[in-house]
Amino acid sequence: MTRSASIALVGSTGSIGQSTLKVVDRYPDRLRVVALAGGSNVDELISQCRRYHPEIVAIADDKRRATLIEAMRGTQVTIASGAEGVQAVAAWPSATTTVIASVGFTGVRPTLAAIAAGKQVALANKETLVAAGSVVVSAARRAGITISPIDSEHSAIWQCLRAGNKGEVRRLILTASGGPFRTRPLATFDRITPEEALAHPTWNMGPRITVDSATMMNKGFEIMEAAWLFDVPPDRVDVVIHPQSIVHSMVEFQDNSVVAQLGVPDMTLPITYALFATERPPAASEAPVYDPVEHGQLQFFAPEAERYPALRLARDASLLGATGGCVLNAADEVAVAAFLKGELPFTGIPAVVKEVLAQHHVVSDPSIDDIEAADRWARECAQAIVTGRK
Amino acid sequence: MTRSASIALVGSTGSIGQSTLKVVDRYPDRLRVVALAGGSNVDELISQCRRYHPEIVAIADDKRRATLIEAMRGTQVTIASGAEGVQAVAAWPSATTTVIASVGFTGVRPTLAAIAAGKQVALANKETLVAAGSVVVSAARRAGITISPIDSEHSAIWQCLRAGNKGEVRRLILTASGGPFRTRPLATFDRITPEEALAHPTWNMGPRITVDSATMMNKGFEIMEAAWLFDVPPDRVDVVIHPQSIVHSMVEFQDNSVVAQLGVPDMTLPITYALFATERPPAASEAPVYDPVEHGQLQFFAPEAERYPALRLARDASLLGATGGCVLNAADEVAVAAFLKGELPFTGIPAVVKEVLAQHHVVSDPSIDDIEAADRWARECAQAIVTGRK
Repeated sequence: MTRSASIALVGSTGSIGQSTLKVVDRYPDRLRVVALAGGSNVDELISQCRRYHPEIVAIADDKRRATLIEAMRGTQVTIASGAEGVQAVAAWPSATTTVIASVGFTGVRPTLAAIAAGKQVALANKETLVAAGSVVVSAARRAGITISPIDSEHSAIWQCLRAGNKGEVRRLILTASGGPFRTRPLATFDRITPEEALAHPTWNMGPRITVDSATMMNKGFEIMEAAWLFDVPPDRVDVVIHPQSIVHSMVEFQDNSVVAQLGVPDMTLPITYALFATERPPAASEAPVYDPVEHGQLQFFAPEAERYPALRLARDASLLGATGGCVLNAADEVAVAAFLKGELPFTGIPAVVKEVLAQHHVVSDPSIDDIEAADRWARECAQAIVTGRK
Repeated sequence: MTRSASIALVGSTGSIGQSTLKVVDRYPDRLRVVALAGGSNVDELISQCRRYHPEIVAIADDKRRATLIEAMRGTQVTIASGAEGVQAVAAWPSATTTVIASVGFTGVRPTLAAIAAGKQVALANKETLVAAGSVVVSAARRAGITISPIDSEHSAIWQCLRAGNKGEVRRLILTASGGPFRTRPLATFDRITPEEALAHPTWNMGPRITVDSATMMNKGFEIMEAAWLFDVPPDRVDVVIHPQSIVHSMVEFQDNSVVAQLGVPDMTLPITYALFATERPPAASEAPVYDPVEHGQLQFFAPEAERYPALRLARDASLLGATGGCVLNAADEVAVAAFLKGELPFTGIPAVVKEVLAQHHVVSDPSIDDIEAADRWARECAQAIVTGRK
């Protein structure tokens, strides 16, 4: 049982980063921030330094380095910047736990740095496992490190798995809200606007993940993440639509028992559970408590293949093997950006991803350099397809 | 982990007894029947002996002893009868696990005999904990024995508790089907017939437990059982109505996480889980598997106090202390029997129980003899009230 933790927080100025700091505020006797890294929001990062007094702070965006140095003048904090600076935060010697809360492919290298330095890793960055699962998981296994998921679905599965032994698991069942287009007529999908796609019914998230949630590419990524995190074949990870977002996921055991984790959507729960490594300290009194009567109706639907082609693409990518997830992620990121800029219809997102996957030459047993190369190739390929379609 | 078990089965000819034998049939390499006890169905007991070849067989009803001896002539089986015979089965030397599947107050003494003999106890008999919880639980604790529940609700809670530590539990949430009168107008409750009360929407059970399910006295008993089994105060055990009977119960932890166990109603699951002491072997292929989409709607309602006065009576009885549960159970058994004979209206059941509880002088720290005396007193008192009302 983790009694206390010294935290290195990568991605401190984003949504999960800020929620992580709220959890630190809730348990000040047991959690301490020793290292912070932000992307480009230097003002927020400076204000966090003034509040949490880390030993090191890094800003990924080198152009903001001077501002950070100026603001921190007269303090003892070590200042770093760029990718190397962020990796120094992730591997900071006095940290016991590294939280990877940054978004995008740049989360991969800091995760590997934290594993190499022997940290407990709490992971909110999807790309780390989707794109680089084979490399990251084998590094963690060699180092004897458990990767703790920070997201409601994988945290739910992690919790439910405690109700049985590994060999007793028959399948994992991820729940999905179904996004804003769960009941929209399929014939109108070509006319979906970015504004419509950005209106998520349950969670308030960044634009890319919100669009990924509408296409369910997000859930496809989660299938791959669950497979890596819990060492379960992707074809034993299923998805069920649950519009209320109360059941966060379930585990079905071979004795036909199904164990589910429920709660009002609140990111502080999975963050706390990950930071304390499965210990459950008392929640803040203002945190929302699930009441079965208040949420008196829970519904489940099967995801339609035509409505959510991304689910199938994710299964195809996982069958492709090692670099498949990386290409899926990179192509999707480019396609979503093109959709948000009005360069691609909503239905063009899975179409572009499918085409990139079809053109990809898989690299088996890839190194992290191979994965980065496949990522670059997939982005260029996706961009060329988007441009060619215009 | 239990690799195999030799089973003494008390109440083998009843519903749970027969389901237990089905579980033995499913795992023949790991489960073996060494002792059987039945109540009065001697023909079924004889046929079970021919199939399972126990070392001892007992029939509670002494009048059937001769029939049993005659049928078993030429075999090696030891034959016993009466309360002592049943206790000999419960404590049979070669048994590792004693299943108490008999109904009624007579389940208490065999449970104590099994505990005294150091058996693992799998308990389906409600009266054991409702009426004699203080005696049984302290005996089990002294002997270092865990009592494994065999019923869907307590098995669910037992499973869900694995997702956290004991000190992290905030409350247990028992689900209840709500019975056949969940939506019936309250003004018509006086006219409920035994036939109407015996039509349970989900489970097919004996007459008393079916009526107890309609009044929710059954759920009141389960509050008390959960409190004894899991060492939780009764005021931290709540009840929620869930007409679909898919969520078998839930545990709410102090970090606001709620863990639930789900499944299609099927008694072989909790029996298997109890016999293997939390191991989960593969279910039979013909056993029903829960599919969230097929059971696409789960509802939860608060139990109305006026509709289910038995819930309040159970809480009152648990506050009364040691002999409260015993008196609650005995008075209810008499009142239900009177209702089934047409001597008491449906609404008379809680009324009689309430009056008996009001007249009871609690015995603190009771012996099993004190509990048996309180049981006899409560039956006489309830019968006198029923007779006086006629």
